[in-house]
Amino acid sequence: MSTTRFHDDSRDVDVLYGDMAAADIQPLWVQEDLLPRTPGRLRPHIWRWKTLRDLAERSGDLVGIDRGGDRRVLSLTHPDLGGRPFATPTLWGAVQFLGGGELAPAHRHTPAALRFVLEGSGVWTLVNGDPVHMAPGDLVLTPSWTWHEHHNPGTEPMIWFDGLDLPLVRTLDAVFFDPGPEEPASYQAARVSRSEQRYGGAGLLPAELRPADGDARTVGDPASGRSSRLLAYRWAAVDMALNRLMESSGRLTAAVRYADPATGRDIMPTLRAEMHRVLAGHRTEPVRAVGSAIWVVYRGAGATVVDGQRLRWTAGDMFVTPSWAAVSHEADDDADLFLLSDRPVLEALGLARTEVVAPHAAGEL
Amino acid sequence: MSTTRFHDDSRDVDVLYGDMAAADIQPLWVQEDLLPRTPGRLRPHIWRWKTLRDLAERSGDLVGIDRGGDRRVLSLTHPDLGGRPFATPTLWGAVQFLGGGELAPAHRHTPAALRFVLEGSGVWTLVNGDPVHMAPGDLVLTPSWTWHEHHNPGTEPMIWFDGLDLPLVRTLDAVFFDPGPEEPASYQAARVSRSEQRYGGAGLLPAELRPADGDARTVGDPASGRSSRLLAYRWAAVDMALNRLMESSGRLTAAVRYADPATGRDIMPTLRAEMHRVLAGHRTEPVRAVGSAIWVVYRGAGATVVDGQRLRWTAGDMFVTPSWAAVSHEADDDADLFLLSDRPVLEALGLARTEVVAPHAAGEL
Amino acid sequence: MSTTRFHDDSRDVDVLYGDMAAADIQPLWVQEDLLPRTPGRLRPHIWRWKTLRDLAERSGDLVGIDRGGDRRVLSLTHPDLGGRPFATPTLWGAVQFLGGGELAPAHRHTPAALRFVLEGSGVWTLVNGDPVHMAPGDLVLTPSWTWHEHHNPGTEPMIWFDGLDLPLVRTLDAVFFDPGPEEPASYQAARVSRSEQRYGGAGLLPAELRPADGDARTVGDPASGRSSRLLAYRWAAVDMALNRLMESSGRLTAAVRYADPATGRDIMPTLRAEMHRVLAGHRTEPVRAVGSAIWVVYRGAGATVVDGQRLRWTAGDMFVTPSWAAVSHEADDDADLFLLSDRPVLEALGLARTEVVAPHAAGEL
Amino acid sequence: MSTTRFHDDSRDVDVLYGDMAAADIQPLWVQEDLLPRTPGRLRPHIWRWKTLRDLAERSGDLVGIDRGGDRRVLSLTHPDLGGRPFATPTLWGAVQFLGGGELAPAHRHTPAALRFVLEGSGVWTLVNGDPVHMAPGDLVLTPSWTWHEHHNPGTEPMIWFDGLDLPLVRTLDAVFFDPGPEEPASYQAARVSRSEQRYGGAGLLPAELRPADGDARTVGDPASGRSSRLLAYRWAAVDMALNRLMESSGRLTAAVRYADPATGRDIMPTLRAEMHRVLAGHRTEPVRAVGSAIWVVYRGAGATVVDGQRLRWTAGDMFVTPSWAAVSHEADDDADLFLLSDRPVLEALGLARTEVVAPHAAGEL
Repeated sequence: MSTTRFHDDSRDVDVLYGDMAAADIQPLWVQEDLLPRTPGRLRPHIWRWKTLRDLAERSGDLVGIDRGGDRRVLSLTHPDLGGRPFATPTLWGAVQFLGGGELAPAHRHTPAALRFVLEGSGVWTLVNGDPVHMAPGDLVLTPSWTWHEHHNPGTEPMIWFDGLDLPLVRTLDAVFFDPGPEEPASYQAARVSRSEQRYGGAGLLPAELRPADGDARTVGDPASGRSSRLLAYRWAAVDMALNRLMESSGRLTAAVRYADPATGRDIMPTLRAEMHRVLAGHRTEPVRAVGSAIWVVYRGAGATVVDGQRLRWTAGDMFVTPSWAAVSHEADDDADLFLLSDRPVLEALGLARTEVVAPHAAGEL
Repeated sequence: MSTTRFHDDSRDVDVLYGDMAAADIQPLWVQEDLLPRTPGRLRPHIWRWKTLRDLAERSGDLVGIDRGGDRRVLSLTHPDLGGRPFATPTLWGAVQFLGGGELAPAHRHTPAALRFVLEGSGVWTLVNGDPVHMAPGDLVLTPSWTWHEHHNPGTEPMIWFDGLDLPLVRTLDAVFFDPGPEEPASYQAARVSRSEQRYGGAGLLPAELRPADGDARTVGDPASGRSSRLLAYRWAAVDMALNRLMESSGRLTAAVRYADPATGRDIMPTLRAEMHRVLAGHRTEPVRAVGSAIWVVYRGAGATVVDGQRLRWTAGDMFVTPSWAAVSHEADDDADLFLLSDRPVLEALGLARTEVVAPHAAGEL
Repeated sequence: MSTTRFHDDSRDVDVLYGDMAAADIQPLWVQEDLLPRTPGRLRPHIWRWKTLRDLAERSGDLVGIDRGGDRRVLSLTHPDLGGRPFATPTLWGAVQFLGGGELAPAHRHTPAALRFVLEGSGVWTLVNGDPVHMAPGDLVLTPSWTWHEHHNPGTEPMIWFDGLDLPLVRTLDAVFFDPGPEEPASYQAARVSRSEQRYGGAGLLPAELRPADGDARTVGDPASGRSSRLLAYRWAAVDMALNRLMESSGRLTAAVRYADPATGRDIMPTLRAEMHRVLAGHRTEPVRAVGSAIWVVYRGAGATVVDGQRLRWTAGDMFVTPSWAAVSHEADDDADLFLLSDRPVLEALGLARTEVVAPHAAGEL
Repeated sequence: MSTTRFHDDSRDVDVLYGDMAAADIQPLWVQEDLLPRTPGRLRPHIWRWKTLRDLAERSGDLVGIDRGGDRRVLSLTHPDLGGRPFATPTLWGAVQFLGGGELAPAHRHTPAALRFVLEGSGVWTLVNGDPVHMAPGDLVLTPSWTWHEHHNPGTEPMIWFDGLDLPLVRTLDAVFFDPGPEEPASYQAARVSRSEQRYGGAGLLPAELRPADGDARTVGDPASGRSSRLLAYRWAAVDMALNRLMESSGRLTAAVRYADPATGRDIMPTLRAEMHRVLAGHRTEPVRAVGSAIWVVYRGAGATVVDGQRLRWTAGDMFVTPSWAAVSHEADDDADLFLLSDRPVLEALGLARTEVVAPHAAGEL
């Protein structure tokens, strides 16, 4: 069977290409790099806490929180993403600053958000009316299409890391936004939120919640979602869980995944959050995974080797690791790194791959 | 269309029936009650703690624990079940007595078992080699096909409630039993078992455990099972969870379901366990559900109305409520009732029904 | 640690056992065989078509179908089951005879039923009002809690195999029964039932049925069930599927599982049905599986070796294979065997095990 | 509580913004339109068969199929997507032309692809070595990471529609590509592919495929995927399914979803395919859904109203409907429209919404 013909008639081909362009058609055969051998469209990138904190504080002084503008948010803008305020093609990362006495009024949107507190204490985030107290190291969720507002009744500012799936939800053209009522909600502060009252016990669920309910919620509107029923994960609990994991394994690194206590699933259908602990003098083995990630250094100092490039960090620094890069952490001081990734998306769509990289191979990269 | 014929020829019919019997055949039309309008083959039944404790203690004095005999177990024998040592058609309930210095050696079986501690402290149950400490109010699991042995290194006896799915697994002809090695295992006592080190944090799971792993385990041999990864549920945690549920709901009754923290599913594919709290002077609304249950009074005093029959109870009493009976609890003193039921079986097989009974209707029953 | 004590005081022990009996308590340590090493409570058993057909026909002559009695059903009564009209501890098997011009009026019950047609043609079974035509080799479902009635408008009788999960549902005390209206339904005969119109195309589903709907149905009352949406599986389709499987594998045995086309799950949550084809001169490898089964020979002649015992069969014969028995079929003439088993129950409850038996080991048994 | 402060010091603010830009940070409060009220970033767009066919044929004459270039593919390039060769933000649509005697050699990639045949007959697509015959109206799948090559042994060219999830998989940076061996595979042509031999019967699955296997496959590498086991859906079967659905419903429009016969799930985790039939003189009710779609007119003539804009079409035309647009089809002649959408992505991520639009509201748009 003959496989190809070729008329080397560049004039005709030029006309053909012109006609295609006029018809909103492109020939695949002139496209380059549509199908690369492996992922790797992004470089690693790091933002320094010193800079972030300074910019956030100056913004607090100079820029008010207004109805409409809503939030005082400084977005990590990856230089490889064409100027869009995105940290990776799927993830939004930012620093949010809420001054003493300020409040960020209620709104809701289909992009899911989480807040990881870096500095300050005593802000209350109301999630669908449930007041959730915030302190350093706490992770607080505002899942897709939940009303949320932030109140800082104290005098000190709070700074937290904001993580969202906004770039992905925009690509999917699935953003809905609802600006909410003018008036801030009144609320009764209680150190334990209702979601923690109901879902705060390990393996102890409200008896009326049947096992199958987790699945049943997969049908319906986004509001009922499939996000975690637990809205706050306290630092003390995370710290204890990491210590116990190390006791259990006898190793000097450990990682916990934040999960819905009622299903074990990720906190959001689109977002995975984990806390990684590496004790001083130790390192994690290099691993590649499909999907991008933002790391926020909560505590300690050290470095992360990303495909052979060493990023040094201290507390508060934030960095991006791209899809399929070999990633290994090394701690100089006991270190805790908060991870936000789009991994549940890759798993849901059958696109997840993970590979442990042989040490020498990683060293060479 | 004519619908029936009938030859009133009793001689021929007698011969026919005789020929059927000889051929291991029965005519459906002479069967009665194969298809009753509603469930209800069992009456409620109660066993008294005073009696159970006395018999258990005397057994401790008179009957040794031997290799082979294995366990000093006193089985609740429902009088409606034809003499078999079963509490309901699907559930085994028993009191187990382990004297000071005794040990019940290792074995494993496909029927799943749980232990709810009533009296005594300091026994260690090894589950697949993981030593689990036991104290009053603790629930300890020995899932299907896990090795388990009980060590009582102290001087005081322990008494616990044993719950198994043995009657059901026998009906299914799915019992496998493995007597285990002659020698007891040596173990290193630690107040926190390895399963608690790994799964003891609410919504905080080992990061290497992926969400889909829960489902992946459904395939394979029973040993990998689908039982809870957490093997011990401590009374203090259950107590706090019940109090928080009441705070959250503003009601004076509450119930928690013991669940696998990694999936939210029941502790065993065949068994549901719950703890129900009713504060003094309050009652729960009458509910019917398909499936049978054993209740163990952990604390308090009161009564349970079962289809209009009032069973009075105090701490340590155990009673059975049958399928589809209307059940309502009333507390004289603050009461905690441990529930063991076969409900996951009914749910898995599409046979679950639940109905809240109108108060007057329940009163009339 | 000393492990046992024993007071050899038989008088005290006698009194203890008497007190236990009076208190509805049994000592586990005198129970024998509660936990056998492997399953095996039942022997294989076979019923002959010649006998079944003769008894069915004579019943048709002598016994009418009456409102109340409802059905002319001859139940396979396994001699190891204490006289109950059950084929295995979980399965009901029977032969049903419906004479020309007869009708079996509507009722519904939670036990699920299926009909596999052996002789005769032209009966209509209405399932929730959907008229399903019946002919030899067809499998027709009447899932849990669906209304069903059988109309034979022709002159010839029909005989079919009835399979139900009744013994299991009785053990679970989950039987509900509803006798239905006095009047038979009128219906419009159409060779293709509505369920086949909607679900009869392989991999082609009504677009309004979303993938998640399968799971969504797991919650709720038994009527909405989790049974197959397709109510009839035609012999011609089964025959073609078997032939194509043999083409695909190049082997001379094949087996298809009847499944819900919308989920791939078994036809009922409690019942698996399969058709096994063995060409003349060939045999299947011996396999053990937990769970019991009824086999109905649809076509051909041969033998089945069950733990070394050879059961010879021809068309219409029915036999039971017990849990964990090694089963191997041999065909003298091209043979088709219909299988009904409780396997989905074992799988749902984490109790399924399967083992291919080495040929010599099976031979020795 | 005072909520805002504002220092109207534009000089300081300018400096702040400059420092942000230098630090790869953007202030959210100057971003516009990051969170629109509803989706709607794309306009509808249509491509004409006459043009597509002409360009494809001229490409066949002028441009060879070469090793490396691989395929003669003309990509639908939506003018709202910045010049990238994508039909929507998540979907690739194209026309592929394979001349008589040509072959497109093997490769594989993680983006999933499907082929819907428009013209010509007798091409064989080998999917992981399974030869699949192609004729008009057939849908043929080449799931993620499956080897595929196209052979045209006849003399006539074939033109088909190519649908891929490439834009989405690129956004997720999850593209892997493997160019495959130099030599084309030899194959044995058989009108029924192996996948159809195994999965071509409605509700009749190979018995060795257990129901839980569908879930078990969710873990692991993309190759094992979660795509349909059936690789070809024949036009005759689709035609019959549509007719039977209309019989069943009594309506004059119908739609079937192509599904995995073993699970009922969509053909790919990322792609939904459906066929919609509208008889002459009828229309479908306007529906909005989150997610974008490509429609390929297989047969007939009519128009689609998209948010009030009327797109007229005849056979072979292809058009895009954007997220959340109200879509209604009207047929002048009996019409069949093939639909490709990203809906499974939205459902998997909890972002799916659907809304039937009141007729007058749709009319006004």
